Amino acid sequence: MKLLRFGPKGQEKPGLLDQGGTLRDLSGHVEDIAGDALTPEGLARLAALDAAGLPAVEGAPRLGPCVGRTGKFICIGLNYADHAAETGAAVPSEPIVFNKWTSAICGPNDDVEIPRGSTKTDWEVELGVVIGKAGRYIEQADALSHVAGYCVINDVSEREWQIERGGSWDKGKGHDTFGPIGPWLVTPDEAGDVGNLRMWLEVDGRRFQDGSTSTMIFGVAELIAYVSRFLSLQPGDVISTGTPPGVGMGQKPPVYLKGGEVMRLGIEGLGEQQQKVVRA
Amino acid sequence: MKLLRFGPKGQEKPGLLDQGGTLRDLSGHVEDIAGDALTPEGLARLAALDAAGLPAVEGAPRLGPCVGRTGKFICIGLNYADHAAETGAAVPSEPIVFNKWTSAICGPNDDVEIPRGSTKTDWEVELGVVIGKAGRYIEQADALSHVAGYCVINDVSEREWQIERGGSWDKGKGHDTFGPIGPWLVTPDEAGDVGNLRMWLEVDGRRFQDGSTSTMIFGVAELIAYVSRFLSLQPGDVISTGTPPGVGMGQKPPVYLKGGEVMRLGIEGLGEQQQKVVRA
Repeated sequence: MKLLRFGPKGQEKPGLLDQGGTLRDLSGHVEDIAGDALTPEGLARLAALDAAGLPAVEGAPRLGPCVGRTGKFICIGLNYADHAAETGAAVPSEPIVFNKWTSAICGPNDDVEIPRGSTKTDWEVELGVVIGKAGRYIEQADALSHVAGYCVINDVSEREWQIERGGSWDKGKGHDTFGPIGPWLVTPDEAGDVGNLRMWLEVDGRRFQDGSTSTMIFGVAELIAYVSRFLSLQPGDVISTGTPPGVGMGQKPPVYLKGGEVMRLGIEGLGEQQQKVVRA
Repeated sequence: MKLLRFGPKGQEKPGLLDQGGTLRDLSGHVEDIAGDALTPEGLARLAALDAAGLPAVEGAPRLGPCVGRTGKFICIGLNYADHAAETGAAVPSEPIVFNKWTSAICGPNDDVEIPRGSTKTDWEVELGVVIGKAGRYIEQADALSHVAGYCVINDVSEREWQIERGGSWDKGKGHDTFGPIGPWLVTPDEAGDVGNLRMWLEVDGRRFQDGSTSTMIFGVAELIAYVSRFLSLQPGDVISTGTPPGVGMGQKPPVYLKGGEVMRLGIEGLGEQQQKVVRA
């Protein structure tokens, strides 16, 4: 299934994209694409519905983030060897874990803001993992059973605030709109081999990132198991698994967003996002 | 007012502690001590109630975290000059901001777990600020109008994972039960001068921390204004403002929790917490 949320910000309804590409309204069957709806039982209930019998949604509504009530937005840093190299960082010996503030989450095609005073706002296309089953101390062999689905994430980042302002990266990762998630949550049965998906990001038509999840250092199952040693996971939590080379900071000279650009990004089988860049 | 949440984990009801020390049930008047109930309007509605007319709660129920549905648990590092010194860190030139995963939040008297494999679990008594009014780019002069109230927080920390495991501090700050919050949320009118409150923490009766918010480097209004430049604040968000000297890591030699201890901690006018330390 391709599950999604549509409608105005904060009032999104649950929906799905059927095999023919029609957006269908799920609000008669589930309250939100969130919480219990993401558990194996919740997803099985949705999968048993006859998609063709669901109300088709008129027009082209705004898409919200494809998962609601995300309690934790967990990110993995420098998880592609080539990206680590382009930023001048060493390849990590164990996953680097950091946080994006959940208030940064927005829809896949919402405007992305450059914060006031920012001169180094940058992009990162990433494979997102949405947790469906709660757990901690999860064994790697069992880790994928905790996944509700996968999605595209743009881990928008302010590099000066991330790196040069002391303490954690949190100052540079959590501005409102720095976390477009979607367009849809693709359940594992339809997501293909998530260890080998092409991924790309363009700014105003220029392709900056053109990689594959096949060059990830730590894979999805390993990341879930690792992270769950330090914190417990709940349905709706999101793990963003790192970005391939081609971020603005890695260009020579660096290229940062100025406002007015359009970012387009996508992952094979998981759909595309498009954001206009505006100033806060 | 002293607002609180009582009952089993995940099923807490809203309540208040009246002037006579009786716990009163607020569930006939508000769904939870969370979200809109924390706004100035929501708090004014609760303040207008006749506390003596509310149902008294029988017995001594468990207290939950004094605020529900916290979307962000924002922490300030090294915000007491003496604490920075004891950890060997420089006094920061601007606030250090880091994250505690929201799944770490627990009640003020719940057991605190030592994570599996941990050898450096430590304590930190802190003044918590609960946000009541949403905002970003908040002016310092206006910052205190965004506060719903204050509370005691134990910022439990695994020092090896915080400091020696690469990347952010997030691996050492977010284990389940690492964030006791409460016993109650004290509204600003009853909290006294939050820039001059005594605070203390004891382990098995030995007083390790004995300080005052008067030695904070960056005060509450400054922190709210600062943080809101990097992220937006919503009702129920919590800012934990740093700890005074006396953490286990700062002892010579360092002292860490082993399991079986009892931690007691409190802040003048904001109540006390007591946690038994257990192994996960």
